[in-house]
Order: sequence, then C-alpha cells, then structure tokens
Amino acid sequence: MSRIVMKFGGTSVGNTERIRNVAQRVIREAAKGHEIVVVVSAMGKTTDELVKLAKDLASEPSKREMDMLLSTGEQVTISLLTMALKHMGQDAISYTGWQAGIGTESIHSNARIEHIDSTRIEQSLRDGKVVVVAGFQGMDSFGELTTLGRGGSDTTAVALAASLNAKQCDIYTDVDGIYTSDPRYVDHARKLSELSYDEMLELANLGAGVLHPRAVEFAKNYGIPLSVRSSLSDEEGTILLEEPTMEKNLIVRGVAFETEIVRLTIGYEIPFNGSLAKIFTTLAKNHINVDIIVQSIMEGTQPSVSFSIKKEDFAECIQVLETNKENLGYQSSNFEIGLAKVSIVGSGMVSNPGVAAQMFDRLRIEGIPVKMVSTSEIKVSVVVPEVDMIRATKALHDEFGLAAIPV
Amino acid sequence: MSRIVMKFGGTSVGNTERIRNVAQRVIREAAKGHEIVVVVSAMGKTTDELVKLAKDLASEPSKREMDMLLSTGEQVTISLLTMALKHMGQDAISYTGWQAGIGTESIHSNARIEHIDSTRIEQSLRDGKVVVVAGFQGMDSFGELTTLGRGGSDTTAVALAASLNAKQCDIYTDVDGIYTSDPRYVDHARKLSELSYDEMLELANLGAGVLHPRAVEFAKNYGIPLSVRSSLSDEEGTILLEEPTMEKNLIVRGVAFETEIVRLTIGYEIPFNGSLAKIFTTLAKNHINVDIIVQSIMEGTQPSVSFSIKKEDFAECIQVLETNKENLGYQSSNFEIGLAKVSIVGSGMVSNPGVAAQMFDRLRIEGIPVKMVSTSEIKVSVVVPEVDMIRATKALHDEFGLAAIPV
Repeated sequence: MSRIVMKFGGTSVGNTERIRNVAQRVIREAAKGHEIVVVVSAMGKTTDELVKLAKDLASEPSKREMDMLLSTGEQVTISLLTMALKHMGQDAISYTGWQAGIGTESIHSNARIEHIDSTRIEQSLRDGKVVVVAGFQGMDSFGELTTLGRGGSDTTAVALAASLNAKQCDIYTDVDGIYTSDPRYVDHARKLSELSYDEMLELANLGAGVLHPRAVEFAKNYGIPLSVRSSLSDEEGTILLEEPTMEKNLIVRGVAFETEIVRLTIGYEIPFNGSLAKIFTTLAKNHINVDIIVQSIMEGTQPSVSFSIKKEDFAECIQVLETNKENLGYQSSNFEIGLAKVSIVGSGMVSNPGVAAQMFDRLRIEGIPVKMVSTSEIKVSVVVPEVDMIRATKALHDEFGLAAIPV
Repeated sequence: MSRIVMKFGGTSVGNTERIRNVAQRVIREAAKGHEIVVVVSAMGKTTDELVKLAKDLASEPSKREMDMLLSTGEQVTISLLTMALKHMGQDAISYTGWQAGIGTESIHSNARIEHIDSTRIEQSLRDGKVVVVAGFQGMDSFGELTTLGRGGSDTTAVALAASLNAKQCDIYTDVDGIYTSDPRYVDHARKLSELSYDEMLELANLGAGVLHPRAVEFAKNYGIPLSVRSSLSDEEGTILLEEPTMEKNLIVRGVAFETEIVRLTIGYEIPFNGSLAKIFTTLAKNHINVDIIVQSIMEGTQPSVSFSIKKEDFAECIQVLETNKENLGYQSSNFEIGLAKVSIVGSGMVSNPGVAAQMFDRLRIEGIPVKMVSTSEIKVSVVVPEVDMIRATKALHDEFGLAAIPV
C-alpha cells in the first residue's frame, strides 16, 4: 500500500458541486488501495472576500489577525470535503494546519514550514481514513496561527508528502500539465510528460504560474515526485523528477515569455565607486523587483548598468532613483518601454554550449533585435521588442523541436 | 482595575459597520480603566450559510465536521474586531476557543465547558491588550474542535468571567433588557433593573429568548453578575443577581406566554402497570419535548395522563404513540389544539402562598378557562385557549402590579 498526497486548489473546490467531484476523485484513488492525504485551499473567491472585509476595517490590518482571518478559508473546505466523503461512504477526517502538526516559523502572512509532527495523520491513516488537511496554514511554537503566503497550499502538500514518505504528490489544478509553451499563443505547444525540478523552477519564475517555486524547491530537496494534472479529466499530467527519463533528447523543454518589461540604463561617472551595489540595495529595499542586470565597462566610455523591471514597478522605480540621485551618485539615465522577455529552459543546455548561439541565430534570421541577454545553466532569456514576443516564442519553439506535430 | 467580560451576538457584529460600532463601545469601556475580554459570535447569517453548504453535501453531516465548519464563523469575527480595535488605536489580540484555553467534553455540537486555562488571556491582559475570544467553541482533551450548542457564546462569556474573576459579564444584544412581559403585546410592560438567576431561568425556559438557560445557570453557579443590555444604546440593561435588592416588593416579576400548545390525554386500563414511565421515556427517546404533565387517578374512573407539547411536535408524537401502542399499553387517547401557556414568574412566590390562587381568581373573573396547571417554587403556568392568551397575559400583568405606569 502506498501513500499519495493529493492537492486541490481554490478553483477545484469553488462550490459544493466541485467539492463533490473532488470527493469522487479521492474515492477513486483510495479504491486503488492507496493511503490518501488530501490538501485543499480555500474555496474560490473566499480569500478575496475575507480580505475585502479586513480592508474595510483597517487600512493596514494586523498580519497576525489576517492569518487568523484567512486560515478560516481552508478550514471551511476541509470540513465540507470530509462531509462529502463520509456521505459517499468513504471514512475521512479533517485536520486544520495545527491539528495536522504543521509547525512554522513565528512569522505572519509568509511563514515557512519548520517541521511536521504527523502523529495524528499517521494514526488516522492506520484507521483507514482519508485525511483532509487545510493547506496554506500552520502554527508556530507559541500556538499562534500562521499562513504560508503565496503557493502555500502546494507547499503544504509537498511538505506533507515528504514527512509522510508519500510515493508521490499530485497537484490537481485547472490546467492538465506543464506545456512546452503557452498553448493559447503557440500552436502545437505540447504537454510534457516529465520535467526536472530545476526546469520547473525556471519556468515557474518565468511566470508559468501553475506551481509555486517554493513547492518545487521543497519537492526537489526531498526528492518527492510531484505531478501537475487536471482536476477535471483523468489524463496523466506532467511529473517533476530530479532527472526526467523520457524525452531525454530534448535539450530545450520549454519557451516562456513575459510582457511589459522596461529596460533602464544608468550611466556613472569615472571612477566607478561601488554605487552598483548601492543602487540595487536601494531598489530592493523599496520592493522594486529587478530581473536581468547587464553591466558593461569599456575603456574610454562612461560605465553604465542596464536592468529590466516590470512595467508596473516603473513609476516607483523612477521615484526611488530620483529621490536617491545624490546618494547613488549616477549621472545619466534612460529607459526603453514596450519590451518583453522570451526564455528557453532545459537542463540539457548545460552540456550543449551551442544552445544560446542557436537561439540568437534564429532570432537574427527572424529579424528580431535582442536588447538584453541573461543566461543561467539551464535557461537563456532575451529581452526583445514586445511586438516581436509571440513571433520569437513561436520561432524558438520550432527551432528547438518542441512542437507536438513536427512543422 | 476591574475586569469585565463583554459579549456581542451575531446581529451586533453582522457587518463591518456594526463591528466598528462594537469596537468603539469596547474602547469606551477600556478607557474607564477596565481590563476587557470581549466574546463574539459569528457574523449575522454566517452560520446559516455554512449550514446550507453542509446540507448541500451531506443529508446528515458528521457532527465533528460541523464543529470544524461552524467554528470558523467566530474566528472570522474575532480577527475582524481585533483589526478594527487596533486600527482605532486600541491594542488588542484575538484568540480562538482553543487558544483561549476553553476545554470541553469530547462531544460534538453540544459540548459543555469543563475547564478553562486562562494563561494566555491573563498574559495578554497584563500586556494591556483587549482580548477578543471566539464564543461558542472549545477544544476537547484530544485536540478536537468542539462547539457548545445553543446559547454557546453566552456560556463562553459567563465561563470566562468566572475563570477570570471578572467583576461582571455584560451580554450586549438587540433588546435593552428583560421586561415584565413582551412589550410588543403588553402595554406598559416595564424593563426590570434587576432579576434573580432563577427567575431568569424560568423566563428563559418559557421562551424569553434573550439569554440561554445554560449561561444563566453558569452565572448562578459562580455568582457572576450578568447583565443584558442593548448594543445600540448606552442605557443600563437588566442585571441578574442571586437576590435582587431593587423592586423587592414585586412578588411576581414577569408574565411570559407561549403559543401553539397541544394537550394530549391518554387513558389506561386498570390496573395501571408502570406504563407512565414507559410512555415518557419513549417520547423522550423520539425527541418529543413534553412540557406540563398532569396525572389524575380517581376511584372508579379510568386512570389518565394529560401532557402538553408544542404543535410542531404533534405529528411525530402521534406517530410515536401509534407505533408503540401495543408496547405502551394505553387504550384511549384524545387531544386538544388551539391552546397556549401563560406563566407568572417571581421568587417572591415561595413565601406568598396565595399567588396561584390570586392568578386563578383573576382568570376566573376574566372568564378565561384554565385547561392545565403546573407550578414550581417560583412559577405558575396555566394552559388556556390560545384566543385568550394575550388577554390573560395583560390581566395578570395588571393583577400583579407590573405596569410601568399604574393602570
């Protein structure tokens, strides 16, 4: 008998009919002889509604009280799902985060799981029950309720899978897996049957919002096979592993893109005096998320640094720079809007040095100018004009042989 | 510095504006230098909405899971009220039932409080915080969430007042106190400034739904002065004490009434063979709530027993009797509908033997027939035709001098 952790997000439990569907799926898995732990999020828009109530009472609600408030959302779902399971003849029991033994740091709204005491879950599994656990929440060592922040329920699921030595952790969601690129824009985008944790991390950080990087990292650290699959169909999804065995021939596994990028360039006086660190520290302190950074110092020219940010942060970024101009010691600045980022991801790149060159060459052939470049061991990102983004994505998807049907 | 427990029901915290009002009132009390513990119920219709979700998923939802579900209601309120308090500059902290140390029996949906470990509350009070506690809920010794059933939040408030040695416990509600009779029907019904616990118990059991009998009993057992007052005005309400000192001259303090009473009479064969116990045990097992029981055995006649039930239980009662006719061994049965119960309550009756006689005499003068009678040390109830109920109530209200303005 093997253990499986199944996680269902807010959309999958958005109303009682959907909760019934989830119960049926859980019962089908249990009928295969598995021990089942289910992790659920708050129903659909519950969290938004609770946040609205809070904002109505306090412009900056206490984080502790927000955790107290929001953790009710999953508690509602676990009880309803458990009722549904029992009504359908499947013995089951629900546990809040703290009852499930999920111990976190003493930080509100964004706590990390520190340890899990799975005694109660283990006992209930031995008693033949399906165990339904509230995602996203835990308790610190002082008996205070905490929440885990974005991607929290995925993290709960993976952490429980690790703690319970589960065979695998299945994330049920409204997409049926991870694709080589966004199927809404790229014809023949193909669902990947396997993907490495690292590739998923890169894709997740590039905005493929299916799985939160935290959960992926957790799964990687504990070697938990993590699958992403549809809560609406029985189709196999995508499974994350340390080393995918299928589709080994794929050097690049995915092409991701992100719109509304702005490039800023700042010129310095010679001699350059350590302001580089200062500027990015200042931006970080002001919650400006800087992505690609390109530094170039050439003999005989003014040193400059270029970096990309999201358009939504542009106004704040300019204000921070202006306010701190004196202190940061820069001279000139300019920016370019209407840009986008296109990235190729694949662990095969490490051993294939020509991948970046192949990428640039194809973009050159397509007549798409590359404004900035950033590389990691398993990823190459380029900043291109936004108008060329989808064309670049399609071209690269084709270039690296990702299409479902060869084109 | 004295401690006060303030309790606000679901209507008083029904929306964010009302929660703000409650916060203002709490702050006003705190400003007088009191240490304040606030107990709140779930917001307005929250509980009904949660029950609806549950019923949609299971015809008979698990009681454990119902407790899990319903206890989220108060958790939402405590966090919102605490946010509001903090936003208005009053330091505060919220605790769920289990965090507040409220230990109950291991029974779901109707647990009794067994003990309170008030360590955390005491610490927070010492830290100068207003403590906001979720009513209606607790935890058993196995770490399971429990709820306290009807009147649960009142009971939480009184139990906390006892445990914390509070000076008094104030129940804020949508009425401004306990009246000598229902002011909607009886002109000149008067708000009582004081009432004994026992009188309140009788009135509560007679349907004066302001306070739950459990909470009153708890207050009586621990000698906690319990006040009932309006959450909308600053007017003093009614305070419950062991022995009211004001209005001592009042022998009768209240006249209560209840509609839709049905009388059943069952005739037995001679010799009478212990079926009396059997019949009421059978009815109790089938959740038929029997109120007044009148047994008469006269020489030469068939023994019979009459009892009153609520009209809503009539169909079930008849069915239970028919189904068990053989076993119960009765012969004839008849019933009378269209009845009502009118009761006078007052601890002064014990030492005034003529009260019942005075009551019957006035009803005789009014031409109102008395169908059944039941007496306790501080209460006399009569069953009369429903059409005469209000007239009987007004007459008795007048007879015992309860009118605000002598009439």
